[in-house]
Amino acid sequence: MNYKMIINILGKTMLTASGLMLLPMFVGIICQENNFIAYLVPILIFVAIAFPTLFIKVKNRAIFAKEGFVIVALAWIVLSLIGALPFVISGEIPNYIDALFETVSGFTTTGSTILSGEQIESLSKASSFWRIFTHWIGGMGVLVFVLALIPSDNQGIMHVYRSESPGPSSSKLVSKIKTTTRILYLIYLGMTILEIILLAFSGISFYECLLTAFSTAGTGGFSIYGDSLAHYANVGHPNAVYIEMVVACFMFLFGINFNVYYLILTGGILKALKSEELRAYFILVLSAIVIIALNIMSSVANFGEALRYSFFQVATISSTTGFITYNFDVWPGLSQAILLFLMLIGGCGGSTAGGLKVSRAIILAKSTNQDVKKMLHPRATTSFRFEKEPVSRQIETGVRTHVLLWLILIIVSTLLLSIDSFANTASGSVMTNLSSSITCISNVGPGLGKLVGATGNFAGYNAFSKIILSVVMLAGRLEILPILILFSPHTWVKGK
Amino acid sequence: MNYKMIINILGKTMLTASGLMLLPMFVGIICQENNFIAYLVPILIFVAIAFPTLFIKVKNRAIFAKEGFVIVALAWIVLSLIGALPFVISGEIPNYIDALFETVSGFTTTGSTILSGEQIESLSKASSFWRIFTHWIGGMGVLVFVLALIPSDNQGIMHVYRSESPGPSSSKLVSKIKTTTRILYLIYLGMTILEIILLAFSGISFYECLLTAFSTAGTGGFSIYGDSLAHYANVGHPNAVYIEMVVACFMFLFGINFNVYYLILTGGILKALKSEELRAYFILVLSAIVIIALNIMSSVANFGEALRYSFFQVATISSTTGFITYNFDVWPGLSQAILLFLMLIGGCGGSTAGGLKVSRAIILAKSTNQDVKKMLHPRATTSFRFEKEPVSRQIETGVRTHVLLWLILIIVSTLLLSIDSFANTASGSVMTNLSSSITCISNVGPGLGKLVGATGNFAGYNAFSKIILSVVMLAGRLEILPILILFSPHTWVKGK
Repeated sequence: MNYKMIINILGKTMLTASGLMLLPMFVGIICQENNFIAYLVPILIFVAIAFPTLFIKVKNRAIFAKEGFVIVALAWIVLSLIGALPFVISGEIPNYIDALFETVSGFTTTGSTILSGEQIESLSKASSFWRIFTHWIGGMGVLVFVLALIPSDNQGIMHVYRSESPGPSSSKLVSKIKTTTRILYLIYLGMTILEIILLAFSGISFYECLLTAFSTAGTGGFSIYGDSLAHYANVGHPNAVYIEMVVACFMFLFGINFNVYYLILTGGILKALKSEELRAYFILVLSAIVIIALNIMSSVANFGEALRYSFFQVATISSTTGFITYNFDVWPGLSQAILLFLMLIGGCGGSTAGGLKVSRAIILAKSTNQDVKKMLHPRATTSFRFEKEPVSRQIETGVRTHVLLWLILIIVSTLLLSIDSFANTASGSVMTNLSSSITCISNVGPGLGKLVGATGNFAGYNAFSKIILSVVMLAGRLEILPILILFSPHTWVKGK
Repeated sequence: MNYKMIINILGKTMLTASGLMLLPMFVGIICQENNFIAYLVPILIFVAIAFPTLFIKVKNRAIFAKEGFVIVALAWIVLSLIGALPFVISGEIPNYIDALFETVSGFTTTGSTILSGEQIESLSKASSFWRIFTHWIGGMGVLVFVLALIPSDNQGIMHVYRSESPGPSSSKLVSKIKTTTRILYLIYLGMTILEIILLAFSGISFYECLLTAFSTAGTGGFSIYGDSLAHYANVGHPNAVYIEMVVACFMFLFGINFNVYYLILTGGILKALKSEELRAYFILVLSAIVIIALNIMSSVANFGEALRYSFFQVATISSTTGFITYNFDVWPGLSQAILLFLMLIGGCGGSTAGGLKVSRAIILAKSTNQDVKKMLHPRATTSFRFEKEPVSRQIETGVRTHVLLWLILIIVSTLLLSIDSFANTASGSVMTNLSSSITCISNVGPGLGKLVGATGNFAGYNAFSKIILSVVMLAGRLEILPILILFSPHTWVKGK
């Protein structure tokens, strides 16, 4: 284990994070909220820890897969631990475990909250900004951001990039990994700015446009309003439908693999549209929208309205954002089952969305189909293609292992949450805990049922359960392996 | 595809089944119920279809894996289709789809019912016998029974045996497959008789002993009483606790791999106790009993009573029998979550229990652990052992494919059940449909929640849902592949 190199990258990550924390501090100063100390303290802690690491001489700069996983896991944990401090110091979320849950939920772009609607609206501007800005930081990845900044050409950082990027395989857009991360962040920034501009046409304030766009871009789901995106319709904003539709479209767009945008930018539009994952994502989303719209039609005014709710809800769930415009707990069973299914699948690989990813679902389906064939004809040599390339044995095994680990984690988390008496009072406690586990591992946000659904929040869970759910959110965002490897004894046995 | 050989074995299966149907007919005649026509008609149908097949000359007697799967799937479907007729003809379950659901639930040893408590108790003795006798037939396997009877030494019937026997790999006890099936059926019969004798000590009637033992042996769960095994405690039978404990012990014993009993009979007691699967099953069951007993203690009289309920409930769920003594829907969330988890795992391979099987869970855990190691050290060659033998790539892939197919089937079934408005009225419709799917694929019986839980039944589902659940039960009992392969286009393409 190359400890010096791990410390080196962690130090750079902390310095970057302290730089990012200046933004909410300035928001507080501009708005004259007198809470800059809440940000200054964590920034100073970051700098105090990170500054000495700059003077450590790293002779061996080699990073292997193991180091890549460990760096990513540690960076996310440290960021969350320190990122929670402003909420505690400002007294807005006095309990540290609550603040940690909220921060992990922010960085992992989950959007599950322990705050009630009233509490969300009474947050200071600085805290509200920081809470939602974490979505934007976590969406594309903290280390991808650091890698884009540091002037290093170490080939080993590919392992760091791979460990943080979602999806079954992470390809480089261009030969240099640093250039790849820069291009990705530029696309991310460009799309965020485009959404801000389009939202501005509705007449809502720049601050609202900014934070809504941050939350959408990271497919997070935190909102400055207690009733989430339903706020505009609830207060009778004249452009409420326009705002909803812009956000819905962008949620959908941020759930698409960013490679597609790079291809479009470099002129390969036709090539981009041939992407197998993109087509499957389209088909999945479109059929879900139509079925749900037909299913809920009898409970709303007309088909247009059904389509509007359905489109928004499918976009928010399949992109794993978790914005709410309608209490879907009262929808018919079929719609709820479809939404739960979309939650599991999530968005495309290489997007900011969570879940298992569409590409994994495709590879899994093809690989299972191949195995069934093989059982019928044991001697036949079989192979299959994804995105026109043959799928290697390594990727195939990786996808299966991922799905199984993910399933095991959901079961273990549900069992551990059941120790808590929170959901016990309601009928269907198993469902509540199961849906909490699924929504957290998929980084969606709201669960199902009265307690943690569209109208509830996670405050009622005890501290132990909140820590479990925080680990599950991190495991979901980092796709399990980094967290598993950090806690695995294999990793820390010397000479291995 | 060797059609002649398929028809040959199917014919023999039907003749065997018609022979078995004579038993409920005699029960009806002895009890002077005047319903023998309800059994005579299906028997005549079986014979009329099967008789001509005896005259088909089969030159090529080769059976490959594909034929094995197809024979098993077709035999179970035909048996269920005809086995449902007595209920319809006697007018006791007038709707054919309802009768089919009940028969499939019987043969697959699931024990989910569409009858209310009152309806169950008003069944004729003949129908009650047939309903529960199907558990005993299905427990060890219909074709295993046929193979034990027919004087054939065809090596290809190993494929039929493999397709019907539960677990990741089916080993022969002795070199001849026919002798193996005979030994298995003798052990099965012996244990059933032992349970009948032990139950007789309680003073209940022979008829009750017989049917309770049939239901336990197949780990089915149908009972002659509407309140299931709780009946004896409810009516204040003096030996109620004794009956419960005998049944609980036998449920546990029938959930153990029958190879263990063969080893014990041939003197290899120590070898039998070294079985990795047996030890894991012990640990799983014992820890579940203790945790649940502690968890429910506050709601019952004393720890002894808590232990009694906990032992029975864990035995009934982990062996996937589904007898009920206590409405566990009112138990705390932790106990419910543990029960749901035990439902998924099920009993040991090579037993009459359902679920994923303990051996699969062990192989899956070891194989996943190995893959994680491999991701850390890509060049290392890794392998692992189960029951002291190295696990082949083929078995490893088989286990993973099984778990994934099983997961996909649960999701698809839950989605299809959601179309039904049955569970829509209650809160938590997704949970109801999910638990119905899990209880049916694991061949347990009762689900969770008010509608399909300990106090409910499956009558409320519509015909479409009942057919879906019947297919799920068959897929669960036959471990998916036979059903999948029967409906797969690959199977019926010529020249493959």
